[in-house]
Parts: sequence; structure tokens; C-alpha cells
Amino acid sequence: MAYRAPVEDVLFFLKTCTSLPRLMEQGLVDLTLDVVEPVLEEAGKFAASVIEPLDRGADTEGCTLKDGAVTTPSGWKAAFQAWNAAGWNAVAAEADFGGQHLPTTLTSALTEFWNTASPSFGIGGVLTQGAIEALTAHGSPALQKTFLEQMVSGAWTGTMNLTESQAGSDLSALRAKAVKQADGSYRIFGTKIFITYGEHDIAENIVHLVLARLPDAPAGTRGLSLFVAPKYLVNADGTLGARNDVVCTGIEHKLGLHGSPTCTMTFGETGEGAVGYLVGEENRGLACMFTMMNNARLAVGIQGVAVAERATQRAFAYARERRQGKAASYGGAGMAPIIHHPDVKRMLLTMRAETDAARAICLMTADALDRSRRLADPVARASALAEASLLTPVAKAFSTDIGIEVASLGVQVHGGMGFIEETGAAQHYRDARIFAIYEGTNGIQAIDLVTRKLPQEGGDVVMTLIADFRDIADEVHALELPAFGRAGEKLAEAVDALGRATRIQLDRLGEENEKALAGATPYLRLFARAAGGAYLAKAALAAHKARLAGDSDPRHAARIALARFFAENLCPQAKGLEDIVEAGPSSLLTADPLLSLP
Amino acid sequence: MAYRAPVEDVLFFLKTCTSLPRLMEQGLVDLTLDVVEPVLEEAGKFAASVIEPLDRGADTEGCTLKDGAVTTPSGWKAAFQAWNAAGWNAVAAEADFGGQHLPTTLTSALTEFWNTASPSFGIGGVLTQGAIEALTAHGSPALQKTFLEQMVSGAWTGTMNLTESQAGSDLSALRAKAVKQADGSYRIFGTKIFITYGEHDIAENIVHLVLARLPDAPAGTRGLSLFVAPKYLVNADGTLGARNDVVCTGIEHKLGLHGSPTCTMTFGETGEGAVGYLVGEENRGLACMFTMMNNARLAVGIQGVAVAERATQRAFAYARERRQGKAASYGGAGMAPIIHHPDVKRMLLTMRAETDAARAICLMTADALDRSRRLADPVARASALAEASLLTPVAKAFSTDIGIEVASLGVQVHGGMGFIEETGAAQHYRDARIFAIYEGTNGIQAIDLVTRKLPQEGGDVVMTLIADFRDIADEVHALELPAFGRAGEKLAEAVDALGRATRIQLDRLGEENEKALAGATPYLRLFARAAGGAYLAKAALAAHKARLAGDSDPRHAARIALARFFAENLCPQAKGLEDIVEAGPSSLLTADPLLSLP
Repeated sequence: MAYRAPVEDVLFFLKTCTSLPRLMEQGLVDLTLDVVEPVLEEAGKFAASVIEPLDRGADTEGCTLKDGAVTTPSGWKAAFQAWNAAGWNAVAAEADFGGQHLPTTLTSALTEFWNTASPSFGIGGVLTQGAIEALTAHGSPALQKTFLEQMVSGAWTGTMNLTESQAGSDLSALRAKAVKQADGSYRIFGTKIFITYGEHDIAENIVHLVLARLPDAPAGTRGLSLFVAPKYLVNADGTLGARNDVVCTGIEHKLGLHGSPTCTMTFGETGEGAVGYLVGEENRGLACMFTMMNNARLAVGIQGVAVAERATQRAFAYARERRQGKAASYGGAGMAPIIHHPDVKRMLLTMRAETDAARAICLMTADALDRSRRLADPVARASALAEASLLTPVAKAFSTDIGIEVASLGVQVHGGMGFIEETGAAQHYRDARIFAIYEGTNGIQAIDLVTRKLPQEGGDVVMTLIADFRDIADEVHALELPAFGRAGEKLAEAVDALGRATRIQLDRLGEENEKALAGATPYLRLFARAAGGAYLAKAALAAHKARLAGDSDPRHAARIALARFFAENLCPQAKGLEDIVEAGPSSLLTADPLLSLP
Repeated sequence: MAYRAPVEDVLFFLKTCTSLPRLMEQGLVDLTLDVVEPVLEEAGKFAASVIEPLDRGADTEGCTLKDGAVTTPSGWKAAFQAWNAAGWNAVAAEADFGGQHLPTTLTSALTEFWNTASPSFGIGGVLTQGAIEALTAHGSPALQKTFLEQMVSGAWTGTMNLTESQAGSDLSALRAKAVKQADGSYRIFGTKIFITYGEHDIAENIVHLVLARLPDAPAGTRGLSLFVAPKYLVNADGTLGARNDVVCTGIEHKLGLHGSPTCTMTFGETGEGAVGYLVGEENRGLACMFTMMNNARLAVGIQGVAVAERATQRAFAYARERRQGKAASYGGAGMAPIIHHPDVKRMLLTMRAETDAARAICLMTADALDRSRRLADPVARASALAEASLLTPVAKAFSTDIGIEVASLGVQVHGGMGFIEETGAAQHYRDARIFAIYEGTNGIQAIDLVTRKLPQEGGDVVMTLIADFRDIADEVHALELPAFGRAGEKLAEAVDALGRATRIQLDRLGEENEKALAGATPYLRLFARAAGGAYLAKAALAAHKARLAGDSDPRHAARIALARFFAENLCPQAKGLEDIVEAGPSSLLTADPLLSLP
């Protein structure tokens, strides 16, 4: 099945719902809209023609480890090099080191395209970009000079070495050690697990960012320092020198993402220790790492959107071809294409609606990030940063949760064929499962949202956003257009439920913190129901205006139908979610008789 | 991780919530409760000690096909023979052919245990039992004599040959042909796909039940006849004769259930045609096949429960051992076992609550089946049959949907380890995915529920059941016990939402049939929210009474906590589901602009 990048919809959303046009007008983004379109188109073509054809084979073939060297799937290296050569690795980085410094809204769309074509391929670029950001923000000029240009070009890739077997969600338990040397460098010892692209054969060098602990460091996360430790040391002239003492000692046999090597990395295997260089200050490593983690969280959310998009396209294509039974809405001869059966329509529309809502949330998060970095006014920048911080856990957790749900529906649409690996639908179901776990589990995201993000500015940040959602609902309602059905009413109900639940959660913080935590996951889903509904409605309102202005693109009617479907079929869950946030936690905290049974 | 069959909970439920004690008292079931307990215990031990240890290896090893012969995983044949030798294959069949004729409530519990230990193993027995039932109900005495005794002992296994590549959900499109011979037998030609245990090495003979079409048969499902066609023909003395012209020409590479061979079966490969014998009357094959399909639907629902149970036990075990971070409810030293984190508790309790609710729905369906077969009064039998018919699609679809959801939560509880195949959690996520598809997709179940089951007796059947649910809610409410929290109120709300949505769906049938179909899936979930809540509450009320009577079993408190958790955290979804049933379908039926986009 051919993948078709959703260029028109992304472009329409960027034009009508984000700040991108305003940032361009004000010269804060050095681009024009007529450049954005061909960038999206070229990326879509590259993803569909170069990356996507490798994805099934990579799933089947997987990666192999022999004598410390990882072989990636056939075609991987050539595709990666072509991708670099076309400049796609460099789109986000700053210009100083060869980057194009494109706005995050646009680079997020590109991240989606690569990951739709193949998330095993796409995740490599996400990690490299994260490492670039950490070095750009916190690396010394010398480190930046040594590493960044090669990483931006894609000649070298980057990794994040955080997890150890005893320390996953809880980084305070990390044990890897770093010992300072006379020349100012460090020697790193320890074993890191689950390191994506920790070892591979697609680039000349691998730049590991590693969290480790100095001998005299305080316990907990305040004793973590961040280091850069390349696979090959770099000579003063920039050429590659000796092999560093960091080696891949195992790769995982995973449920999905078979094309992406997940490595156990041993630092100090020979006893010498891996040579590493401090990034930022000693014992401030976690703050530095969070620079890359926050952006990686948005990128992982986009991976959820990406796999959902692919599963949705595949399901639509199958449902148009596969014929079974009779359907009232099908007037043709013979059995009806199953897309005509109401229950199949429900699955397909749910897939499309969840995918587009998640994309909208991710793009609005990216837009807030762009404003936080590019607006001139520091107050406006701070306000945008708070909005981005609020939206990031929702973008990550909701998008990756629906990634799984949509991929699962995609299997279902295929019936028995969905369970057969060759069909391809099952791969999406396997691949999507990790996104809800890595870069902070979705439970951690929900806790982050409730305990750190809601209280920003005493709740003003979230309440302002909710008021924006309500304005959108009111605007839809006021139109009283048949095409919108009861969307205004249903969206308003969801937004109001979110408002009440937000107040409940804010009131719990402190004395009833356990209840706030117990309600965090349903609260996050409720947030996404309102936000997703509002952003789809925003796009639908823009589509309505375009139609009024004489634009006959049939996609406008589709946008309105989608926003209506979401409001009438997914927003109503908000009521129950509010109720669960309110009434659910007590039973959860009194369930010890149940939890303690053998 | 050791599997522990939930003997205590099943026994308690059978004793307090089903008709089993009454049927025993009245001599309609030839058993006593003190026999039921050791039967459950022995089955649990067999499942845990003989079957479960093979399950991971079978997933890794899979099945192979060479020269028409399928090799099953190591240990499979010995385990299957030991299972037969212990009499477990014979528990459900009637006594005439060596069966034990145990009540369906009890055999359903046993089906769960085998499938929890290994669904790849368990599904074989489900298919054989279905074939036994079809032959018992519709086979001629001669056919019964030839086949049933060997099938009941497990010496021979059974299959269901329905699906062809162009005919999955829509059996009217079947093309396999049967030609009558002078001796009264038939020759069958055609290719069937997705045939579970269609070929294997664990038994001496395989008894295929096959739907095919006579040359002069009417088009559609009224032209289907059912045949029995064994792998080896059977001599007059009961010994095995010539190899029949039915051969396995392919096995599938599947997402899960790797231990269960899924075969393409070619009838008439040599041109001679497979010898087959008519079961029931010509052109009445679908009705005969439905005998086995309805019972198989309940059994597949139980497979959903089974994998959910296994995933839940695995997640609890991991969450008690894995330590990360601090938790307010943990007073011990070092990092807290993650079971103490509220968000992990929510996942674990959701898994346990959904699993137990699904089991309760399946056991109540089985109970209605028992009453429909064993009660003396024909009116009471008919009424019980209508109840069983109503509950069957809910048991099948809800249990298999939550099978997937619970398995997915199980992966999530394991964090990164969940994505690693060796952990085992991922296998459940893969295995569970097919249950929502085979034996009638869950969409088909929802349509069956709404269009065929709700209108039974003008809606009286469903409304009577809903009134029963309301009585349970009222009883909980009236207790005003702190341990039940707001369970009575929340359950009543869910039941009332179901009542209103049922009325809406009934009113739609006929003129607004498309809307009824479009709302079928959320309606089924709503039904299960009310039913699951009511049945768990029924068990909790019995637990409360046991405690009042001085029984200090700590499981009673756990039962009450579970019913409360379900009512307060899962029943509230009912409101939104009612709203979606009511308001959702319009947008779905006006979404053509969206569905027709490329």
C-alpha cells in the first residue's frame, strides 16, 4: 500500500490554526508560505519513495549483533545517507552549525512523515536531533565545534544514555560513574540499557550523551552529570581517532521497531573507562538532559500520530477494496465495499478523527514552542513556553495512546487478514506499543501534567487555554450550521467538563495529592478530548470560512465532517472522564484488600 | 511467572451468583459442590504445571509445514495426550459418547484455565468441542457412531471449515462445492482459509466440518450444506482407512497464537474430491454450523478473559517486585514497589476489574445456557435461551475487547521491559488480538446484539435483564456501607443509561436501521459496563453477606473493593456511551465528504 503524506491538511492547519503566518510576517521565521508547501511535498515524496518501501523488510529482517557491531536492515544505510544528503537531518538545527532552523511546526510535520514511512527509521533522527539540542544549549564552544557540524549533517548520529536496569522512570537510582582525569576529561563506567541506535552501521561515528555520577556527587538526581562520549574519539583536526571504551554488549528482541537497534551499552568494558566530556556543569546533568527529553517527548507523540496515520491510510485502502455483504448506502453491484458498513465507517472515522486530533495537538504544542523561542516580547515568550510545557505531556501521552488504539482498530478493519503479518496492519500494532512507554511513560506524563503543569501561574495557564477552547466551541455553536450538527454543544460540554475537572485536580494538589495522582491518567485523556475537539473545530471553522470565500476544495467539507464526528462521538466521553477524575480516586486508594491478595 | 488459576473466585461466583446450586438441588446437574472444587483445583494444577510451561516456547518455535504435514511445537503432542488421558477433553460432551456432561458454567471455567495457560493450546479443544456439539445436534446416528466417541476421548480432533478468501464475515459468498455420489456420500472441492488446527501431529485423525454448496443449491446462505470430511476415512470397524483428499497447502505467519497452526485446507487437491458426509439436511448447513458457532463465541469470549487473567497476574507480580521512586503509601526502605504508585494501581485495578467483569458476564451467559438446557419447564427453558442469546454477543465482544486492552495495560505496567519479548507481556498483547476477530468480528457481535437480540419478545428480554441489574444497584445503594463507596449510585446511573440507550436502539430498528447499526459498538460497550458492574456487585453483595455471617476470608473485602472500583471508575463511562449512541450516528452517516477523499 502506498503511503501518501497528508501535505494538504498539514499545510492548511499551519496556515489557519498556528502562529506560523504571523511569525513569517513579522520576520521571526525566515520563510514564506510558498516555500513551506514544496518542502512538505518533497519530504512526503522522499518518505513515500525511499523510506517506506524498506519498512516491511526491516521488520522481518531486524538488526543483528556480532562482535560488538550491529548490522541494520538491508537498504537502511543507503536510505539514511540519501536522507542526509537531501538535507533532511539538518532542518531543525540552528544555522551556526549548518542547520536550517526551520520552525518546529514545520519540522514536526516532517518528523511525522519520516516516522509514518518507518518509525524504526525515523526514531534515529529524533535521537540525533535531541543530542544536537542538548549540545547546542549546554555544550561548551569546544564541544560544539567538535561535534555539532557532523551531527547536523548526519555524518554522525546521537544517542541518549539514561536507563539502567534498576533505573527506568526513576533516574535518581542511576549508578553509572564518571571519574575526572587530569586533562579535564572524564572516564565513564557503567551499563546502560534500551539505547536506541546505540550501535549501528549507518554513520561514521556515534555521539553518546550519558548521564553518570561523579564519585563525590550527592545521591539522587542532583548528583547526575551529563557527558558526551563518542564511539570514536575525535582528533584535533576533526578526523576520527581511537575507538572509545564504549561497546554494544547486547541488542533486544522486541515486540516491534525491529529496524531500530535497541542496545545495551557498556562503558568501560576494558577497564579503562570511556572517555567523556562534561556537558554543562557537574551535578546539573538532569536539567541538561531535560532539554533533549522535552523535545523528544513531542517527537515521540508525533511518532504516535505517524503510526496512526499509516494504520488509518492502510485501513481506508483495504475497506475500499474488500467487499463483504450488503450495505444500505451502497448502490453498486455485488457485495459492498466494507467502507459502506456503518460499523466499519465508525472504525475508520474514529481512526481518522483520533489521528488528526493528535496531530493538531502536537502541531499546537510545536507552535507554542516556536512562539516561546521566536517572539520578541519576553513576557509573550514566557507565556508561550508555559503553554508548550502544559501541552507537551498531552501531546506525548494522548498521541501515543491513540497510536495504539488506532493501530488496533486498523487490525480490526482488516478482519482475519489483519492478524497475518504480511498484511502489514499487525506491524503498526506492534510498533506503536513502545511510544506510550519510552521518553517517560504515559503515566509519568499524566503526573507531570497534573502536578507540575496545571499549577503554572496558579492555574492561569491552563484556565486561559480552556477559555480559548470554549471560545471555539461558542463560535461553532453560534454558526448554527447543519454541517456542524451538534458539534458546538458537544464540544462545549467537553470543555466545561475539563474546566471543572481541572479545578478539582488543582484543589487536590498538596493535601490530597494521592487523589490527584490517582486521577491523572483519566484527567489527561479528558484534556485531550477537549483540546483535540477544539483544534479540529478551529480547523473546521477555517474551512467553513474558506468555503464562504468561494474555495471549492472538497477537503473543506471533510474537515467540517471530521470535527463534527469528533465532537459527537469522542467528546461525549468527557462527561464520564470528569466523573472518574472526581469520584474514582477514593476507591483506588482504599483498594488494599484487593492489591494485597496473592 | 507461575500461573495460579482463580479457583476461589470462580467457585465463589458459581456458588453465589449462578443457578448451579439450584440445578444441583433439583437433580438437574448430577454433581455436588464438594466435587466442583476439586475439579477446578485439578484443572488449575494441570493448566499451570503441564500446559503453561510450554507456552513461551511454542510462541518462539511456532508451527512448520512440510509436504502437507504440520509439526506443532515441542511438547505439544505429549501435553495434549496427557490432557486427554486426564479426561479434560470430555467434560462437556454428553454421556452417550463418553462425555461427562458437566454444566457449561463449570466447563467454561475450565476452558478459561486451559486458555490462560496457553491460548494456542486451548483453542484446539474449543474447536473440537464445537464439532462435537454440531455432530451431537445434527449428525445422523451413523455419523455419531463413527466419529463422536473418538472425538470425545480426544483421539481425534475437530475443525470448522467456513472461511474462504472472498467470504469471511459474509458466508453467503462461499463457493466450495459438494457433489453427491451414488453411495449417498459427497465429494467436496474448494479451498478454505484460516482453519485452526486444520492439520497437525497431535492426534490420529482430524474431523473437518465443512460448509459447501451443492450444484443446484440456491445462492446465498440458504444454499449452504454442512459436511463432515475426515482426514482419514474411517473403516466400518472404526479403524482408520484411506487418506482423504483434503490437504493442508499453507500455514499463516501470524501476529500471535504461534503454537496454533492456522491452515489453508484444499479439498479435492487431487481432483477426486474429499469424501464427505452430510450433517443435517441439504441447504440447512448454516443453521447446523451456528450450533457450534454460538458456543464457540462464548468460548472465544472466555479466551479474552483467559489472556486478560494471565496478563493481570503477570503485571501484579512484576509490580510487586519492581521498585522505582517513592510512593506515599509505601512505608518501607528504599525505592517503592511500583504497585504503590497511584497510577500503577489504577492500571492494575483496571486490569483486574475488567477481567473479572468479563469473566462474570461469560459465566452468567454459561449459566443461562445451562438453564436453557436443563430446566424442566419449557417456558423457563425458552426464557433462559433468550437470555443466553442476548448475552452471548456481549460475552464474546466485550471479553475479547478487554482482552486486548488489559494485555496492552500489562505491557505498560512493565515499562520498557514490556516491549521485550522475553518478558512475556508482549505475547499476551499479540495473542489477544485475534479474539476480537474470529468467530464473528466484534462489529458483527454488536450488530447481532442490536438487530437480533434486543428485539426478542418485543424488547422484554433485555428490559427484564436491565431491571435485574437495577435491583442489584438498589440493593447496594440501600446498604449505605462505606466499603461500597458510591458504587450503588454509579451502578444505577450506568444501568439507567443502558435502559435509555436500549429504548433508543429499539426504536431505531426498521426505519432508522442505519443509525442503530452505527451505534451498535458503543451500545455493546455500554451494555457491558452495566452488566459487568451489576455482576461484580452481585458477587460483592454475596461477599458482604458472608462477612456478616462470620466468614473472615480476606477475599470478601477484595470482592467488595473490586465492585466499588468498577462502579466508580468504569461505570461512569456509561453516560458518555449513551450520549454517543444517541447523538453519534448522524455524523457518521453524513461523513461521505470525509470517507470519499483519496
